[in-house]
Amino acid sequence: MRGEQYLLLPGPTPVPEKVLRAMSMPMINHRGPEFKELLLEVTAGVKKVYRTSQNVLIYSSSGSGVLEAAVVNFISPGDKVLVVSIGVFGDRFAKIAAEFGADVQKLAIPWGQAADPQAVKEVLDNDKNHEIKAILITHNETSTGVYNDLKAIRAAASHHPALFMVDAVSGLGAIDLQMDEWDLDVVVSGSQKAFMLPPGLGFMAFNEKALQVHRQSTNAKFYWDVSAGLKYLEKGQTPYTPAISLFYGLRESLALMQEEGLENTLDRHKRYRDLVRAGVKALGLKLLADERAASCAVTSVMAPEDIGANQIRKFMLEEFNIVLAGGQQKLDNVIFRIGHLGYVRELDLLAVLAALEITLVRLGYKVEMGAGLKKAETMLLEYHR
Amino acid sequence: MRGEQYLLLPGPTPVPEKVLRAMSMPMINHRGPEFKELLLEVTAGVKKVYRTSQNVLIYSSSGSGVLEAAVVNFISPGDKVLVVSIGVFGDRFAKIAAEFGADVQKLAIPWGQAADPQAVKEVLDNDKNHEIKAILITHNETSTGVYNDLKAIRAAASHHPALFMVDAVSGLGAIDLQMDEWDLDVVVSGSQKAFMLPPGLGFMAFNEKALQVHRQSTNAKFYWDVSAGLKYLEKGQTPYTPAISLFYGLRESLALMQEEGLENTLDRHKRYRDLVRAGVKALGLKLLADERAASCAVTSVMAPEDIGANQIRKFMLEEFNIVLAGGQQKLDNVIFRIGHLGYVRELDLLAVLAALEITLVRLGYKVEMGAGLKKAETMLLEYHR
Repeated sequence: MRGEQYLLLPGPTPVPEKVLRAMSMPMINHRGPEFKELLLEVTAGVKKVYRTSQNVLIYSSSGSGVLEAAVVNFISPGDKVLVVSIGVFGDRFAKIAAEFGADVQKLAIPWGQAADPQAVKEVLDNDKNHEIKAILITHNETSTGVYNDLKAIRAAASHHPALFMVDAVSGLGAIDLQMDEWDLDVVVSGSQKAFMLPPGLGFMAFNEKALQVHRQSTNAKFYWDVSAGLKYLEKGQTPYTPAISLFYGLRESLALMQEEGLENTLDRHKRYRDLVRAGVKALGLKLLADERAASCAVTSVMAPEDIGANQIRKFMLEEFNIVLAGGQQKLDNVIFRIGHLGYVRELDLLAVLAALEITLVRLGYKVEMGAGLKKAETMLLEYHR
Repeated sequence: MRGEQYLLLPGPTPVPEKVLRAMSMPMINHRGPEFKELLLEVTAGVKKVYRTSQNVLIYSSSGSGVLEAAVVNFISPGDKVLVVSIGVFGDRFAKIAAEFGADVQKLAIPWGQAADPQAVKEVLDNDKNHEIKAILITHNETSTGVYNDLKAIRAAASHHPALFMVDAVSGLGAIDLQMDEWDLDVVVSGSQKAFMLPPGLGFMAFNEKALQVHRQSTNAKFYWDVSAGLKYLEKGQTPYTPAISLFYGLRESLALMQEEGLENTLDRHKRYRDLVRAGVKALGLKLLADERAASCAVTSVMAPEDIGANQIRKFMLEEFNIVLAGGQQKLDNVIFRIGHLGYVRELDLLAVLAALEITLVRLGYKVEMGAGLKKAETMLLEYHR
């Protein structure tokens, strides 16, 4: 009996039963009063997670779709843009911008590290004629398990007029992000991460400055056009038929987030990160991410070289029904990634540590049985006073 | 007690309980073996509905998103395209093509009529240098309740090398469409119509000829890029995180369609159309669509001028919890539309006719009580031998 799977990916994440059930509601008219009420309610709820009073639109698409939406709405062909990339998803943002005609200047940070605010500032200082029209940056880099200190980086870029555009698909709701307070111009996110929903909805928040830029933008756009989105939102509608079931789910997941309280949610994700990192280190394994920039959403663990990450993942899946993510591109078989965002219980993380210990022993790695578990349990003892 | 709503829109349509429940399945890894199996199974199932052995990709988006996908993949800026428009959705296809740089020539047919194959042929005959690169046409025009005879139109265009691209969002599965047999090059559809699913998935089928055109296409593309879709499909994946819940639902709805049998499904939709049209006519009301081109998915009814369509819809919603669609653009308040596609029971259509009779009487229209019902019941008697 394998029982329910432990889904510990950096997305899709586990979905609460209540949310899954809400998605079974019968269909309604997407141009009628019930959907209007639903749309306005969830839009207001999403704004709270973004900590913004600016515009928020909800797209029926994957998170990557909303990255494209950000590019086609706020960047025009020929625009010079600075992409601060700390991994696969930073590179993806750069790829999309280039595809839609931007002149991309990439500030590539070694994988495992966060961007240094000072380094960003220097690039912008050198752009004396303000040729750079937008700065594209990742909030939480899922491929490495590193997050950027957006507050500090934004402050370091505040003297430059470029739009500050953030991919917060995997970070929003797990790691602090204050759109208005930090003056972020465009922030995109997705449903299948800290929002505890299945994939299929993308969120885009943008302020008035971004909207002004959009009005002059020359990229062709239809499905992603924020002007259409805003026009229909005024009527309590979306321009095209929305994924109604996911909107029902979103209402429930926002209620759960509201119940926990955003500060508590963020604290919980920090605790999860600290627990996983301490437990893994107690086993003698190394972590990819710098201590100061370690993601609260996902932890990248360096596998012992002679074993390899994929063998560990395979054993844990087959023996314990635990799903972990592998490394991407040059990190394939080098790291495995433990997702700990969204609807994850703290004791599930102990289960993973136990399974990891057993796996390592079985695969011939010298480990002191119980060391990781004990470390994690001691930390839980502290949390529960 | 208002009970369950009668949702009789041309989309979203009612979703079977079994499908809704399938959508409550827990999340899985979209890069793992379970999703691979699911994706390959539903892709094969969708191909059967299309009657094609060509490429089929499934997008997490609204149907309108897949219209954009068709344009950016198979049309390049500067290409001359012929859009055969018989209503709002034909105009939308033209709008998208123009937005992405096509030189649009529109063959606009009066609303309520289907396109005449001969008229299409004449336009193509005049294009002696084969400047027209694509013909864009709607299978079923939801705004008017008219369908095009694609087989005849395709045959009339067969001497011309332009790609034949079909918006079958609301028609596929309700009205005959044989992609391979009729040599249709690109056919897009959506989940929330005859597929009996909630909105949120779009389907795109395209043949080798279209793929060759795609390889030369110059529109910028990322999220919609069929090359990425095909590459990932080979691995049993989608390029970006898919709306997993809807894929679960799709598996169930395809099983239901398989159980009924495509021929039976098409016959059933024809019967629904005939029943609704005969019932409405027996009440003395006029129908917008030509008899020969009347849609099997939705019926447009001309409201008595002195009452107006919207008052009728309002009364039926408030008194009977029946949701009908209104007219769009110049047909607003002129027609109301009864959707009868997907998971609709024949007796529900009698309920609608009864409610319509009562509504008309209450709004002061002279109608012989029971005339529509009797006509419809007589037809049902014939069906059930």
